[in-house]
Amino acid sequence: MRMYDVITKKKHGEELSDSEIREFITEYTEGRVPDYQVSALMMAIYFKGMCDRETSTLTMAMSTSGDTVDLSEFGTLTVDKHSTGGVGDKTTLVVAPIAASLGCRLAKMSGRGLGHTGGTVDKLESFPGFDTSLTPERFFAQVREHGIAVIGQSGNLAPADKKLYALRDVTATVDSIPLITSSIMSKKLAAGSNSIVLDVKCGSGAFMREPEDAETLATKMVEIGKRCGRNMAALITNMDIPLGYAIGNSLEVKEAYSILSGEGPDDLRAVCVELATNMVSLALGYTAEEAREKVLDAIASGKAKSKFTEWIIAQGGDATLAENPALLPESSIKHEIRATKDGYISKMNAEEIGVSSVILGAGRETKDSIIDHSAGIVLVKKLGDKVSVGDTLAVLHTNNKDAISAAEAKFLGAISMSDEKVEVGKLIYKTIR
Amino acid sequence: MRMYDVITKKKHGEELSDSEIREFITEYTEGRVPDYQVSALMMAIYFKGMCDRETSTLTMAMSTSGDTVDLSEFGTLTVDKHSTGGVGDKTTLVVAPIAASLGCRLAKMSGRGLGHTGGTVDKLESFPGFDTSLTPERFFAQVREHGIAVIGQSGNLAPADKKLYALRDVTATVDSIPLITSSIMSKKLAAGSNSIVLDVKCGSGAFMREPEDAETLATKMVEIGKRCGRNMAALITNMDIPLGYAIGNSLEVKEAYSILSGEGPDDLRAVCVELATNMVSLALGYTAEEAREKVLDAIASGKAKSKFTEWIIAQGGDATLAENPALLPESSIKHEIRATKDGYISKMNAEEIGVSSVILGAGRETKDSIIDHSAGIVLVKKLGDKVSVGDTLAVLHTNNKDAISAAEAKFLGAISMSDEKVEVGKLIYKTIR
Repeated sequence: MRMYDVITKKKHGEELSDSEIREFITEYTEGRVPDYQVSALMMAIYFKGMCDRETSTLTMAMSTSGDTVDLSEFGTLTVDKHSTGGVGDKTTLVVAPIAASLGCRLAKMSGRGLGHTGGTVDKLESFPGFDTSLTPERFFAQVREHGIAVIGQSGNLAPADKKLYALRDVTATVDSIPLITSSIMSKKLAAGSNSIVLDVKCGSGAFMREPEDAETLATKMVEIGKRCGRNMAALITNMDIPLGYAIGNSLEVKEAYSILSGEGPDDLRAVCVELATNMVSLALGYTAEEAREKVLDAIASGKAKSKFTEWIIAQGGDATLAENPALLPESSIKHEIRATKDGYISKMNAEEIGVSSVILGAGRETKDSIIDHSAGIVLVKKLGDKVSVGDTLAVLHTNNKDAISAAEAKFLGAISMSDEKVEVGKLIYKTIR
Repeated sequence: MRMYDVITKKKHGEELSDSEIREFITEYTEGRVPDYQVSALMMAIYFKGMCDRETSTLTMAMSTSGDTVDLSEFGTLTVDKHSTGGVGDKTTLVVAPIAASLGCRLAKMSGRGLGHTGGTVDKLESFPGFDTSLTPERFFAQVREHGIAVIGQSGNLAPADKKLYALRDVTATVDSIPLITSSIMSKKLAAGSNSIVLDVKCGSGAFMREPEDAETLATKMVEIGKRCGRNMAALITNMDIPLGYAIGNSLEVKEAYSILSGEGPDDLRAVCVELATNMVSLALGYTAEEAREKVLDAIASGKAKSKFTEWIIAQGGDATLAENPALLPESSIKHEIRATKDGYISKMNAEEIGVSSVILGAGRETKDSIIDHSAGIVLVKKLGDKVSVGDTLAVLHTNNKDAISAAEAKFLGAISMSDEKVEVGKLIYKTIR
């Protein structure tokens, strides 16, 4: 393989051979192909795309470029869930214990937050003592005993993706369907679960702005996962507005727990039930209807809630708080944002609201930022709600009083009002299996 | 300027601002922008193009990125000629002394050959003693006294182009009209001549395969040169077959001298006369008809031939050989390639023939290869010629007997035969002014 020839082929819209793709990934991972050739290839792929065969070969090559997790001891019971990233997305905290309580095995690695979206690992660390960097031995032992463990990315999983993503990130070549597909799926395949459920977000707070684009991506990922021998499902869900009302780590934990307690906001519950239904159905072989019934029962019976508490304690989290997350520490400052005119909320920019929460301390502006787990935003009004002057729109939570005015300005800039009530878009566009 | 934003803009087909282009070139030249971002931008430009304003801003920014040659002491008499590279293209050796003999000032920098095309500097070095690296003082003095000096690239001319071209060369982003335009024109502008005549080759031995593409490139370069205040003309000439019959350094010198002596092949003479006519017309203000008459007279009168000899001697070349280039040393081996069937030559791949001459020692496979100035190929039959079994098609000249079989195979692979006589394409497609 000459890298120059590979770039030229793709530039002219030709398909790359499996061996060209595999060799490119090996050589790049081992540092024998320079970044400047790879970024040119990535841009050519942005313009000319990749067929399913190329994408699946690329995905497999990246997924086996480093360590892979062997979950074969759990047979077909393992299930993973991946979200393309959203604001206020705390679904993992809900669906993982639901699925585990029904007999699935959740041996999951999750990310940290960066930019306007939060990460599951950060949310879990709201519990003092919670250990997100278990040794492999403890990780496996916990899955065997409790059916569930969630840790941060560990080991050298899909190093080709790590290197490639870092390069794409600075060369404006992130937004390519085959490249997104291979990036996400290579990590999921390396992480070893037999079934994978994807939550592909679309809207203002998501990478994919349009449902059609999200569907294209979701379909491609499902296709590639199946080609690689996994059970696959994907939801396409709306991320025009934050999911639920809470944004920020411990605020989201509390909201997630409220869903497990049979309460909490409808939108969050609907997405969680649909995700969990697909997870349980794929991993345990139930029909969708059977799976949904099991999921609803796991919530209604308290089984899922107990599994949550069991999980947090097993992984080192404070037991009192695990049994009653409402007791998680609150920020010292709670600042109410009030409406300055009457009308209906006609638009909420989820991304901007995410940025506002980062300003308050809930997220990272750079990799080294320190997170304030209690900081964040609790929405009071959401899209379509009627608002009168003086009504509270949201409450900002922070321990940094200097952040409030910038966060409030950012938040208000993310909200539009109209005189007429607006139609609220569909929450779950589609499920692809 | 954030490089990421510049890449994104171009990726989406937007025009870059003048300041973005200038800043990109400055920052890249000074090493503050990494290659991997630039190669991604180059690939985006390959797909999305650049308008005339962008291209001329890029060209100017590159041309002033390092040293520039100040030829103002010669007023408007300076004229440069540039060929996009062809096999057997020895026109500079002919047109430079013609133009100088008529009062133009030729203060020219030329390249060395690499790959299948030769370089003027290598051809001139066929004369023992010829100095292609004069000091600036000697270079200017020679132009003042003799009206002509041709040296290798010297000084730090258009370093942005040097860096960018090296990157494009390994990232498959060479073949973009705005990038080729800015690369060629930035060097020509920096080299300082007031008038510039371009010879844009098209066909199998040239970068541009189709006349339409060559015309697009030529038109763009003329446009950009005029925008930058230079007198411009461009010829589009056929490079489906080598120009003339000789390929290889001293073989080409001899053929060039035959044209100056009023002999030599028609195709080479026609291109030389057309080029020289444009050079003289632009630099001295004659109409095309007047200029052509002057050029023909310079050849017929022997003025141009004398100027050639004067030039070679002035620049240190052996006087006996300068007066009689036919005496330049010949290769020890002359191997005749003979036809194995009857018919007409229906195709000659100029690039492959160029490669064959490189195998014989006439050119460089890498930058460090040593050239055998006497090596090369003399064609006997050309496109359209009738051939009988046993006829000599060409004579290979070399001092390396081990090279003959590979060179012969390469040469034969470059020739196609047919039973019917084929139409020979136009030699000069168009002149653009």
